Amino acid sequence: MPALSQRHLLGIEPLLPGDIRTIVETAKSMKSISKRAIKKVPALRGKTIVNLFLEPSTRTRSSFEIAAKRLSADTLTLSGTGTSLSKGETLMDTARNLEAMAPDAIVIRHSASGAPHMLARILEPPVINAGDGSHEHPTQALLDLMTVEERKGPVKGFKVAIVGDIAHSRVARSNIFTLTKMGALVWLCGPATMIPREVEQLGARVTNSMDEALEGADVVMMLRIQLERGSGSLFPSVPEYAATYGLNRARLKRAKRDVVVLHPGPINRGIEIASDVADGEFSVILDQVENGVAVRMALLYLLITRPEGRGGTA
Amino acid sequence: MPALSQRHLLGIEPLLPGDIRTIVETAKSMKSISKRAIKKVPALRGKTIVNLFLEPSTRTRSSFEIAAKRLSADTLTLSGTGTSLSKGETLMDTARNLEAMAPDAIVIRHSASGAPHMLARILEPPVINAGDGSHEHPTQALLDLMTVEERKGPVKGFKVAIVGDIAHSRVARSNIFTLTKMGALVWLCGPATMIPREVEQLGARVTNSMDEALEGADVVMMLRIQLERGSGSLFPSVPEYAATYGLNRARLKRAKRDVVVLHPGPINRGIEIASDVADGEFSVILDQVENGVAVRMALLYLLITRPEGRGGTA
Amino acid sequence: MPALSQRHLLGIEPLLPGDIRTIVETAKSMKSISKRAIKKVPALRGKTIVNLFLEPSTRTRSSFEIAAKRLSADTLTLSGTGTSLSKGETLMDTARNLEAMAPDAIVIRHSASGAPHMLARILEPPVINAGDGSHEHPTQALLDLMTVEERKGPVKGFKVAIVGDIAHSRVARSNIFTLTKMGALVWLCGPATMIPREVEQLGARVTNSMDEALEGADVVMMLRIQLERGSGSLFPSVPEYAATYGLNRARLKRAKRDVVVLHPGPINRGIEIASDVADGEFSVILDQVENGVAVRMALLYLLITRPEGRGGTA
Repeated sequence: MPALSQRHLLGIEPLLPGDIRTIVETAKSMKSISKRAIKKVPALRGKTIVNLFLEPSTRTRSSFEIAAKRLSADTLTLSGTGTSLSKGETLMDTARNLEAMAPDAIVIRHSASGAPHMLARILEPPVINAGDGSHEHPTQALLDLMTVEERKGPVKGFKVAIVGDIAHSRVARSNIFTLTKMGALVWLCGPATMIPREVEQLGARVTNSMDEALEGADVVMMLRIQLERGSGSLFPSVPEYAATYGLNRARLKRAKRDVVVLHPGPINRGIEIASDVADGEFSVILDQVENGVAVRMALLYLLITRPEGRGGTA
Repeated sequence: MPALSQRHLLGIEPLLPGDIRTIVETAKSMKSISKRAIKKVPALRGKTIVNLFLEPSTRTRSSFEIAAKRLSADTLTLSGTGTSLSKGETLMDTARNLEAMAPDAIVIRHSASGAPHMLARILEPPVINAGDGSHEHPTQALLDLMTVEERKGPVKGFKVAIVGDIAHSRVARSNIFTLTKMGALVWLCGPATMIPREVEQLGARVTNSMDEALEGADVVMMLRIQLERGSGSLFPSVPEYAATYGLNRARLKRAKRDVVVLHPGPINRGIEIASDVADGEFSVILDQVENGVAVRMALLYLLITRPEGRGGTA
Repeated sequence: MPALSQRHLLGIEPLLPGDIRTIVETAKSMKSISKRAIKKVPALRGKTIVNLFLEPSTRTRSSFEIAAKRLSADTLTLSGTGTSLSKGETLMDTARNLEAMAPDAIVIRHSASGAPHMLARILEPPVINAGDGSHEHPTQALLDLMTVEERKGPVKGFKVAIVGDIAHSRVARSNIFTLTKMGALVWLCGPATMIPREVEQLGARVTNSMDEALEGADVVMMLRIQLERGSGSLFPSVPEYAATYGLNRARLKRAKRDVVVLHPGPINRGIEIASDVADGEFSVILDQVENGVAVRMALLYLLITRPEGRGGTA
């Protein structure tokens, strides 16, 4: 497997298609570890991984912690409350201090777009973006790709519909980059208030019609309506949003007969996705979670053991 | 040692006396591990244990974490704050997501009675109830039994007084089941507002008189007055409660000369128990904590390594 | 290396100069472990270390956790929220309960001066003070000493200026004890409201003049202005404090040409220390953090493996 072209994983945008291939193929072999009776290999024994989670997270944080432990790495997890950031320390100073404790990788989730890039510019160890503001969430897009390929093979030529609040979704952005790099055709769908201007420059098509987005789709990615972040102000009412952009079985019939449905979770049942779709035969939502551990194991392994001088840019 | 009849530990109620015996005997050998210079065995190496603590807890959570680590398991601990539950995800979805990360056991504490049972109905890995609402707290009752037996041998025929807010106590319920299954005679004592209706159907006797409860008792279990949960509304005043139902040295003289006094902690000194009793020669309160680690090691070991097809019901 | 004279590390005050030497020399060999590809030795395998952090902390808590893991110990970290202390349990009862789980060391940070001493009086395992009120922060002073010696050799005869809120600083107190025991001359500097009465009895000199403190100094230790703890009431305004007692390049010229500048962090850039000094060639702030892990590894190792009967006092 060739080494990654990058020292850090800051987003999908700077990755080469070959990097994406390397990560997914490595993740496939990592996945088998979690199916063994003894779910642990010594690959990263004696390595220290810092998880700096400055936004709330269950799934991603748990996934990174389990990934690290299955590779025998030690983890140190810091969350927003109880860190020196609450004493007014800058993120850069927190990061420099953590670096002085000799971690082998730093995983960061932050509400500010670009926070991982700031860290990567000054820190020696690899930085992994676990979600930064409305910018990117690259591990999510990688696990999404792995999950789609598992069911349906390479995505080249696929029609992929991404539905919801595209404008505020780092998941959507990372998926647009991943899917277009791998040759899929991405359709973005949502009310006008949720579609960013000039998004077509990223190579995606835009529609406000759910029917048009779903028509003949190989893959449907539903986004979470983030009511806790005020998404509610972007549409008239929750029932109206659900009626217009929620995914239900009837509507899904427009898609290909072997369509797969993804959702990054946590799901709002009955809002962006009907329960019978979320739990139904087209849903790969729990495969996404399972593959998330594998993708994060792959990334931690590839970045920490990456030979120096591979000449990547941050 | 025979395998347990159950795949999960949801409560004491569904256990057979033989299950209880198996757990306590296994806990006795586990206890010796914590007395060694190297307090660690490889029994659960490469296993992942998720601790889902949705109610505050020091003692029980710490006890489960230490138990897992002494068996070389990896742990992932999630607490109420900072989980997706705060984003409106249902408990079932949180559980399904955690399951997708391939844990080998899930330990859950939850404010809702029956929450562990809901999980057990849908999840593959064993579920351990670490306290659910006012329903059961089975590991507490098992460690209580182990502690009593350590000092006084089998409880068959013993008079055991349980004093305090029986109606809201999952500790009391689990102990009633355990003690009656093992042949002890349970007396429940407290003000009328704290005794549930029809509790005698569980095989216990009821009295409002502390003297009657203590008379000739082999074992006294004092319950915590949970002022932080509004127990205060169930009696006129704290001093009055302490005077009527608090355990002090004078009152304890009615019990057998080799009586043992238990309390699940944290104790309210001077309310339900006088300091000189809590710290005195009849108290086994710290033995309870020590045995808690051993009982939880035993349960994790027995449930995770249980041969399949043993035919238990959830 | 001789064993320590103490069973616990409660402060620098009770240590012998030989103890300090043993700790720093052990820390030097521990430091090399963090520079290896596999940053882990089995020295404390099967040991359990409880970190009881009842005040917020990133740096110190992370440092202790990483130190423990690099020695292969298991850790249990408890913070203020979510412990039984919030249910009204006394610190002593929390400690006795933790002890019943057979930890091999207890690290405690507490807002009350003397809290670690209370624990040490009743607990069997070694207690390490990670900062108690305004009393002592011994591991900070030990890592400060190690850092100064690394650059400049033994501190005997050095002029060391400590600048800031001396009266409320446990860092200052522990450093005064350490430095005077090792033969340095300590100058304390700050506004009169920040200098405790009779501090000269500890062997230090006092001045309100920053210029006098810096004149010919070998070492400058800047203290953090703790605005989050109301330090603001001790001086007229932040800009005025920064102008009078902030360290900048111009002012630093009064010190020796090979002066080193320390700060316990987190730093307030532009208040007690100018950014170009914090990041400049005289600053050893990040070395302090790096050495912090080494000092804590040394202490955990020395205290946990200390031969019994060495006859120390608590």
